[in-house]
Amino acid sequence: MKGEALVILLVEDNEDHAELVKRQFEVQRIANRIIHVGDGEEALDYLFRRGQYTDDEEYPLPNLILLDLRLPKMDGLSVLSEIKKSEQLRVIPTVVLTSSESEKDIKSAYINYVNSFLVKPIDFSKFAALMDELGMYWLGWNTNPYK
Amino acid sequence: MKGEALVILLVEDNEDHAELVKRQFEVQRIANRIIHVGDGEEALDYLFRRGQYTDDEEYPLPNLILLDLRLPKMDGLSVLSEIKKSEQLRVIPTVVLTSSESEKDIKSAYINYVNSFLVKPIDFSKFAALMDELGMYWLGWNTNPYK
Repeated sequence: MKGEALVILLVEDNEDHAELVKRQFEVQRIANRIIHVGDGEEALDYLFRRGQYTDDEEYPLPNLILLDLRLPKMDGLSVLSEIKKSEQLRVIPTVVLTSSESEKDIKSAYINYVNSFLVKPIDFSKFAALMDELGMYWLGWNTNPYK
Repeated sequence: MKGEALVILLVEDNEDHAELVKRQFEVQRIANRIIHVGDGEEALDYLFRRGQYTDDEEYPLPNLILLDLRLPKMDGLSVLSEIKKSEQLRVIPTVVLTSSESEKDIKSAYINYVNSFLVKPIDFSKFAALMDELGMYWLGWNTNPYK
């Protein structure tokens, strides 16, 4: 899919954080489309094309998944585990983006094969810098089969 | 190990490429120590502390593994597979850094749970920019249980 639109799936229940991420990627202009879902079940519905997400033209597989850990219905670690069990979805870089710095969460994410684990900076300018960095890294430098 | 020295294990058989990576990280001053091994078997000896690498003070587990694919004795994908089978080593971000852009290599690396896949730029200034970026991202922003 080289040269096609770059899509991010943002799995985040905090509307303010989601808005911040979206705005920052708009400023940066690296991602062409950010799809935002608010809970873990909806994330898996999207990725496995269930329910309202059966149309793969309208709902393409993303080039990057940004995944919060504390989520309604199904927590982020369970979502991650399902993503990495699937050979089709495993190839999509899945980056945890969370407020948690708990050693247990960090270790569990790596045990479940997370691609990268990022702690949300509280300071806004650092948060913006991190969004720039992660966009450049994952959508620019990194290579995956969908890119 | 927060606040301790940051260590990179560089698995690379091309001496010129290894020298370039080391020099760039020296300029950047993010990593405190780069340990360079030239083949896949030695990489696993280091990580599993076998042979000359039994002393864990002298040979600490790295915070980041940079792994070439074409390697003598054991290829990079087999090394990656062994790293990701081990729960202790799985938590170390393992980034493939290769000249290969083969779809098969890219897919196999993700199937074996690579953290990230980077193609070495041929242009030197791009190569230097990539080293800066990956050092900042993995040793700066990214969190793992050994950091």
